[in-house]
Amino acid sequence: MHFVAHINIMPLKELLDPQGKAVNSSLHNLGLTQIQNVRVGKHMTLNVEAKDKAEAEALVTDACKKLLANLVMESFEVNITEA
Amino acid sequence: MHFVAHINIMPLKELLDPQGKAVNSSLHNLGLTQIQNVRVGKHMTLNVEAKDKAEAEALVTDACKKLLANLVMESFEVNITEA
Repeated sequence: MHFVAHINIMPLKELLDPQGKAVNSSLHNLGLTQIQNVRVGKHMTLNVEAKDKAEAEALVTDACKKLLANLVMESFEVNITEA
Repeated sequence: MHFVAHINIMPLKELLDPQGKAVNSSLHNLGLTQIQNVRVGKHMTLNVEAKDKAEAEALVTDACKKLLANLVMESFEVNITEA
């Protein structure tokens, strides 16, 4: 079966997010002061071939742990949908 | 009212995604050959103060068009939830 994975990889909440801070102040310079607490991470989509949804989720989680996310500094969320 | 915005910014489908290609081949080197067609973009979360959800969505869309997304090469998706 074919599945599509949507992955969000974000810096851990406890860590400073310099990129988020920079975007936040740039938005304020543009007059968008209603926006606060910007955090910036990665969004990935990929196709995965698996016999069922559970196996697809396990494969993608494995990929996140091995390569896609730096678990010392980042957390990840996986969302699997049928293609 | 307080809202949280979840934003996905992805390279346009027509464009080459070298980062996605690199991740794809690295995953294959790790033996995860069931994974194909990796695409890499940005995920952002932010807090926005607005009188209602529609205004929050308009503010965040404005921020995406002005700063967060490069509309020549990227598309964006905004998802607003109450804080």
